[in-house]
Amino acid sequence: MKTIKIGILGLGTVGTGVARMLEEEKDLISSRLGAELEIAKIADLDIETDRGLTVSRDRLTTDAFSVIDDPDIDIIVELIGGETFAKECFERAIAKGKHIVTANKALIASHGNELFQLAAEQGVDIAFEASVAGCIPIIKTMRETLAGNTIHSLAGIMNGTCNYILTKITCEGASFEDALAQAQENGFAEADPTLDIEGYDTAHKLAILNSLAYGMKINLDDIYVEGITKVTREDIQFAEEFGYRIKLLAIGKRTNGAIEARVHPTMIPMDNLFASVNHSVNAVDVCGSATGDMFLVGKGAGMMPTASAIVSDLVDISRNLISGSGQRVPYLSFRSDRMNDLSILPMDEVITRYYVRFMAKDKPGVLSRISGIFGEYNISIRSVHQKDGGDECCVPLVMLTSMAREKDMRQALADIESLELSKGEAVLIRIEK
Amino acid sequence: MKTIKIGILGLGTVGTGVARMLEEEKDLISSRLGAELEIAKIADLDIETDRGLTVSRDRLTTDAFSVIDDPDIDIIVELIGGETFAKECFERAIAKGKHIVTANKALIASHGNELFQLAAEQGVDIAFEASVAGCIPIIKTMRETLAGNTIHSLAGIMNGTCNYILTKITCEGASFEDALAQAQENGFAEADPTLDIEGYDTAHKLAILNSLAYGMKINLDDIYVEGITKVTREDIQFAEEFGYRIKLLAIGKRTNGAIEARVHPTMIPMDNLFASVNHSVNAVDVCGSATGDMFLVGKGAGMMPTASAIVSDLVDISRNLISGSGQRVPYLSFRSDRMNDLSILPMDEVITRYYVRFMAKDKPGVLSRISGIFGEYNISIRSVHQKDGGDECCVPLVMLTSMAREKDMRQALADIESLELSKGEAVLIRIEK
Repeated sequence: MKTIKIGILGLGTVGTGVARMLEEEKDLISSRLGAELEIAKIADLDIETDRGLTVSRDRLTTDAFSVIDDPDIDIIVELIGGETFAKECFERAIAKGKHIVTANKALIASHGNELFQLAAEQGVDIAFEASVAGCIPIIKTMRETLAGNTIHSLAGIMNGTCNYILTKITCEGASFEDALAQAQENGFAEADPTLDIEGYDTAHKLAILNSLAYGMKINLDDIYVEGITKVTREDIQFAEEFGYRIKLLAIGKRTNGAIEARVHPTMIPMDNLFASVNHSVNAVDVCGSATGDMFLVGKGAGMMPTASAIVSDLVDISRNLISGSGQRVPYLSFRSDRMNDLSILPMDEVITRYYVRFMAKDKPGVLSRISGIFGEYNISIRSVHQKDGGDECCVPLVMLTSMAREKDMRQALADIESLELSKGEAVLIRIEK
Repeated sequence: MKTIKIGILGLGTVGTGVARMLEEEKDLISSRLGAELEIAKIADLDIETDRGLTVSRDRLTTDAFSVIDDPDIDIIVELIGGETFAKECFERAIAKGKHIVTANKALIASHGNELFQLAAEQGVDIAFEASVAGCIPIIKTMRETLAGNTIHSLAGIMNGTCNYILTKITCEGASFEDALAQAQENGFAEADPTLDIEGYDTAHKLAILNSLAYGMKINLDDIYVEGITKVTREDIQFAEEFGYRIKLLAIGKRTNGAIEARVHPTMIPMDNLFASVNHSVNAVDVCGSATGDMFLVGKGAGMMPTASAIVSDLVDISRNLISGSGQRVPYLSFRSDRMNDLSILPMDEVITRYYVRFMAKDKPGVLSRISGIFGEYNISIRSVHQKDGGDECCVPLVMLTSMAREKDMRQALADIESLELSKGEAVLIRIEK
């Protein structure tokens, strides 16, 4: 039986999971693949810590390049993370004709266009299922299953940390700070959680999925990103009263010949499946021209779920190696010569429904003037609710609007603020069906 | 650009959908595949009806064999259905070295072992994503994504007709008969709905998934099958009161070295995602050793969703044709020489929780005697509820049990019946987490 040799760069949580899976499921994998996947070398800065693996110590090295340069190795698993050294390793591996499997969403989102170009020139496969939504096979679904579908829209809960925090606040009434602290304690959040809670991690994933779905170049820069740090317990409670749940959603939607690309806290009706996706679980909805909505749910992070995605990519590339079918599926779903120049719709042009909460001045006529300003900008108000709380001068006022244009909404809010009809900044949460 | 020639057998709803998709998404498909998929010939008994396709009439024939025998044709799409003529066509196509794409779950479930053996000998690909759960990529997920996972269990709502009927009864209080009639009016149920409502269609799909998940031969005969015809509005209402929803579930679960394989109405807790899968939508949950639960939801039937699965298989096989990588993935996930001899656990040995509804004699001591009999068979009762209704002699009595063995439950019910503690047959619905 043929042996495919694997080199792993980075023996952190996921790297250890991959090594463990290749050891524990050795028989299973060979009975499916018809070849053995052997860990030939592993590079990590720390090769002293015992990770409970059976791989012999002489296969461990602190020198990543020695793994990449090893002529016996067929596939490199890049689990270094970050964009600098990982990119160097990528480029070197491509130059050496090594196929690559990665979980590095930041690298693919920021440098994918360039790296896939290099890989194509060298005839090298790059697989990145683990970079988006953990074990959920959304990359394979986009690249293969939906091959005959024009994609209308996609949406996803793709950051476990944010979903964990929002679930804790929603279901247990925790404060944002406590929920974040718990997420960190339970290993669902990094010591520096900025990338997660500010929405950038989700944006990386959206940039990748948009490219796969719409045949556009990966475009991270034009994505609108708003994290969950301003979501309050109050807004979550109000949302529940109206029959909605707040989730950090990534949305990629075809609108008037452009693609909406936005990441922000979103109110979702309680009967939408997204509303039932809780804790650190991820979910992606894709709407194809033939399939209609397809909804995939699973663990979006963690040692073994991510390892599972890596191993499925290893098996895929190994099948290409065995049958000589390298680059069988285009990296980004579409052949590079058939990609289009779709651009991202400016956020100002996005049309959606809104939840707005003001601290409105508690004086006669204020509601009428606020409504008037909304009217001037063609924003219809579907309901108005004065809430308990507030202080001597102001009361919390919640409005739900009909479909309105982001630019109009922004200007209306600026007017309301400049006329001093409200105190502080209004809270704006977009509502999706 | 290379052209792959397709022959379609059967121009019913799905066949028309496939032809339409290949026409309408021609550019999209070629920009993903790097080849054109051309409909070379279509066979159907009715070649007169106008189906709104642009395919020229001289490509239509009533002679299926002339399509199979056409030396120019690379891939046959079998959409004849049934097990007799379709099987003949399969065998002839394999003999002629044609690759085959099918939606025929009955054929694969009943004759797959034999057909895959023939196909292997001829080096022919057979793809059947459309045979289970419509556009949901569960076959690909089993065969490829989960390559490194030992599967612990799978479960699915895989019959749109049944789910539509149960949803109508649950959400609108319809009777079974009215719900079925509506399903037929809306095209969700066949004129003869037996295969659907008696659970056999779901069993076909379970037989296929069990083989893919566990590496066992396809085994349809040993699956326990119970349809939805005995589910009453009352039981659905009682279930809702206890916080459960009733769904026709297919369950394939690893238990003590064997595989549970059963299709029956199942009570599912309201917070389980399955409980929110309504109307004709399908859903499959797979629990892998590394992934944990993965949950896929989508349209399980209908013209375009099924066509989408067929086209994704056409693209897959075309990629094999282009890169010369035929039989790249084993038909049934596992290489034929590495399949195991796992068998199906006899239904008597299955352990689960139960909902039991009796018409119990309205006499003192009856409850105590019934409880006593359950006790004799080691069945713990978690709660007892006397319901309104009944007649001069009997009252509806609902019991929810702890985990119990099917055989014990059956014997307890037989004892209760023979002692005339209740009237008529007890209603038994299994409860899953």
